[in-house]
Amino acid sequence: MQFPGSHILSVSQFERTDVEKIFDVADGMRPFAHRERMTKVLDGAILGNMFFEPSTRTRVSFGCAFNLLGGEVRETTDIKASSLTKGESLYDTGRVMSGYSDIIVMRHPQAGSVAEFSRASRVPVFNAGDGPNEHPSQALLDLYTIKKELVSRDQGIDGMHIAMVGDLKHGRTVHSLSQLISLYKKIRFTLISPKELRMPEDIVEELRKREHQVVETEDMEHGLEANDIVYLTRIQEERFATKLEADIYRGRFRLNQAIYTRYCRPNTVIMHPLPRDSRDDANELDNDLNQHPSLAIFRQTDNGVLVRMALFALTLDVTDQVEKSARAVNWYTERRF
Amino acid sequence: MQFPGSHILSVSQFERTDVEKIFDVADGMRPFAHRERMTKVLDGAILGNMFFEPSTRTRVSFGCAFNLLGGEVRETTDIKASSLTKGESLYDTGRVMSGYSDIIVMRHPQAGSVAEFSRASRVPVFNAGDGPNEHPSQALLDLYTIKKELVSRDQGIDGMHIAMVGDLKHGRTVHSLSQLISLYKKIRFTLISPKELRMPEDIVEELRKREHQVVETEDMEHGLEANDIVYLTRIQEERFATKLEADIYRGRFRLNQAIYTRYCRPNTVIMHPLPRDSRDDANELDNDLNQHPSLAIFRQTDNGVLVRMALFALTLDVTDQVEKSARAVNWYTERRF
Amino acid sequence: MQFPGSHILSVSQFERTDVEKIFDVADGMRPFAHRERMTKVLDGAILGNMFFEPSTRTRVSFGCAFNLLGGEVRETTDIKASSLTKGESLYDTGRVMSGYSDIIVMRHPQAGSVAEFSRASRVPVFNAGDGPNEHPSQALLDLYTIKKELVSRDQGIDGMHIAMVGDLKHGRTVHSLSQLISLYKKIRFTLISPKELRMPEDIVEELRKREHQVVETEDMEHGLEANDIVYLTRIQEERFATKLEADIYRGRFRLNQAIYTRYCRPNTVIMHPLPRDSRDDANELDNDLNQHPSLAIFRQTDNGVLVRMALFALTLDVTDQVEKSARAVNWYTERRF
Repeated sequence: MQFPGSHILSVSQFERTDVEKIFDVADGMRPFAHRERMTKVLDGAILGNMFFEPSTRTRVSFGCAFNLLGGEVRETTDIKASSLTKGESLYDTGRVMSGYSDIIVMRHPQAGSVAEFSRASRVPVFNAGDGPNEHPSQALLDLYTIKKELVSRDQGIDGMHIAMVGDLKHGRTVHSLSQLISLYKKIRFTLISPKELRMPEDIVEELRKREHQVVETEDMEHGLEANDIVYLTRIQEERFATKLEADIYRGRFRLNQAIYTRYCRPNTVIMHPLPRDSRDDANELDNDLNQHPSLAIFRQTDNGVLVRMALFALTLDVTDQVEKSARAVNWYTERRF
Repeated sequence: MQFPGSHILSVSQFERTDVEKIFDVADGMRPFAHRERMTKVLDGAILGNMFFEPSTRTRVSFGCAFNLLGGEVRETTDIKASSLTKGESLYDTGRVMSGYSDIIVMRHPQAGSVAEFSRASRVPVFNAGDGPNEHPSQALLDLYTIKKELVSRDQGIDGMHIAMVGDLKHGRTVHSLSQLISLYKKIRFTLISPKELRMPEDIVEELRKREHQVVETEDMEHGLEANDIVYLTRIQEERFATKLEADIYRGRFRLNQAIYTRYCRPNTVIMHPLPRDSRDDANELDNDLNQHPSLAIFRQTDNGVLVRMALFALTLDVTDQVEKSARAVNWYTERRF
Repeated sequence: MQFPGSHILSVSQFERTDVEKIFDVADGMRPFAHRERMTKVLDGAILGNMFFEPSTRTRVSFGCAFNLLGGEVRETTDIKASSLTKGESLYDTGRVMSGYSDIIVMRHPQAGSVAEFSRASRVPVFNAGDGPNEHPSQALLDLYTIKKELVSRDQGIDGMHIAMVGDLKHGRTVHSLSQLISLYKKIRFTLISPKELRMPEDIVEELRKREHQVVETEDMEHGLEANDIVYLTRIQEERFATKLEADIYRGRFRLNQAIYTRYCRPNTVIMHPLPRDSRDDANELDNDLNQHPSLAIFRQTDNGVLVRMALFALTLDVTDQVEKSARAVNWYTERRF
């Protein structure tokens, strides 16, 4: 794809070469995110960070990524504060808000809403989650993490074995991630979930059509065997009709130190899109693994900043100016990474 | 008036020369808002953007205008988060908050509240809407748009014909705008509204006293004839006792392609303060006019940024330094305006 | 203590020399806060300003202090928007959010929460109030104000007489402030409160152990006599079981012009942590003292900016670079302080 000026709405926009380009740029962002140096390459640019659905992590991650490039952030966080509640169309909102900033990041509870908004926008729009539909930057940061973790084991993405565990029906994360992984070759997917929360059939079919191996199972223990990556998910309570219905599945598939040691290959990378539910009745990923070197969940969120910086730099076409505007950092930065 | 250090609370502060000064400065802001160049003239300055009533458009427009001049924005958006709910007086809030920034923009649901706040403030305060009372920057951006639209037709404001349509009783926008227009000469106002939602009598009288022609009518079709500008408004549901009462009037006066073609002079400029209510039962300004070249509603919101930049620059007295601190823009800006 | 890289969680971290170091640095911040000059010493640094409990004053004060040093601010204000409501642990939140910024300021309704968060954070964390527990920067700005007020009377903190009035049981402000004052010598504390809202016994004992004089009384009039400082407080309604229970005490101890003139020594400094409740039934500090030269309440909030700038500069270790990066201010700043 052509990055400069593009909307980023769906992982289906990307070819493998696009993904690799994003990852290359993300690699170059590391010293800036880690505060070894700073850059003001987007000094004067404005991000409109519009979150019409609660979010701390994703919202701050995008805002921080833009600040790390030197840009300013104007934020909207409350849907009730919005003209949308006065009957304004997404078209009007898109036309108007795009006059206020250089690029827009948007989250909205309704599938397709960000795409509709983007059609009226005069500046690039990133989809930061449109309900159950897509969240492309999350899939990118997950795949980027997979790549970095495997590289540190002298492996690549092609040919890897990955298990996805939990609510595979509602989790837009695993939908988008598997779509993105499918751009690579000969992957083995082990999909571990309750029967009722299986990965949607069209996604499974698509994976098979691209010659990947897909195993679906309710058997956590066997499913965990012989993987390079185990990707756990949260029960998407907000996508169920009632909390009670969600409760049926909560906590059914858990990973902890004992299970990991018994069933996983040593060094299997543990991932989770976060937030993980640490309450007793859920506890899908136990805190007793917090110090485990293969626990990559916090590297995932750190990598999110790099990937988002890369998306901004590519879309606003400043990748070749980042180095030029680099400077030393003058404040205390020990104890950081 | 003397701009440097002044509060901007009401359109009644302005003489015609003040308005024209603001518009001149706004003209100079165009290349910066359009990203042909950037300026850091307010680098280091802080705007306190205090919205004690929901707003996306106005809040982000002011914040963006300040960022475009190089300044920083600290924002307050939730009245419940405020000390006002712990019994703090507007005087205390004004004294305290004015120690945190160089200039303050404030919206508050109560008429007169911003003026009261400003009396305790040690920095300039802009009224961004105090309930049903005033919203001076909206009136300025509307008049600025009228001027630019008419100039592009080789006309001026003096002698123009304008129709105002809808809820003329509650709309602070049309109150302030007509007051501002009245500084010009020989205007014909056609005020189209249900009898119960007529323009307040004192405003009509004032317009006539200044030798403008005022026609009041409930007849949309005749009212639309022979105007340069048609200014539509939303039913101000939040100002009615009940939603039901508002429903009586909702959708009674509508403009769409068919009505426009039949009753309006060709090239009549179509304006609306936005948000427009695009739900079927309201639909005061139909989407079928979205591509019409005389639809100025999105040029209005774009112009809002210019006018607000001008107000900041005049009040903080940096108009003659904007050019000096101008720089080239280094990121991708195609497809913008 | 060692400032660079430290968390600031409790006043108990500080020795007298630490306090005096903070105050020295705060003194140097005055020209920057007063807009005589500006500095960009933290240009490129990011503050994560996380308020999981309503606050305008403290939140904006911290944000503004960081902006005044040239840094950027990413803000979180709505606890419902947070992953904490999806069962995320404070540990996870701390680990994740600390990857997004260079320093974090956090308020949270639960005692101990900020300390727990800080244990997972890889960047310094400031406690901006953890429920009824601590709010160290408020105590520091209060003591800094006391020092500045007394210095202007050619006095010092050692040996001063201070009265604390109101809800001394729930007010974390007076708890932390008295702890901080106790680092000095031979203070006389007069604690004026309803019997049920007395200062906690362990704090009183600690003050006495350090050889300060403590007088507890319900008699406002005698209590006010012969003090250098009178520190009033708000009834902490949110810490009572019911509003009714709070109402019993509301407005019981009030200071106004008449009482001040009659019972206080001339020039007694009047302080209050703000917000003060100006409703008739509370009115703990009357507006008729607003013009009184000894009313220091607005100097307190102004000083808060200086103290917070100092804490940022010390923790991020840039105190000796502030001057180097100083520049002239180019906008209109009259009428400010």
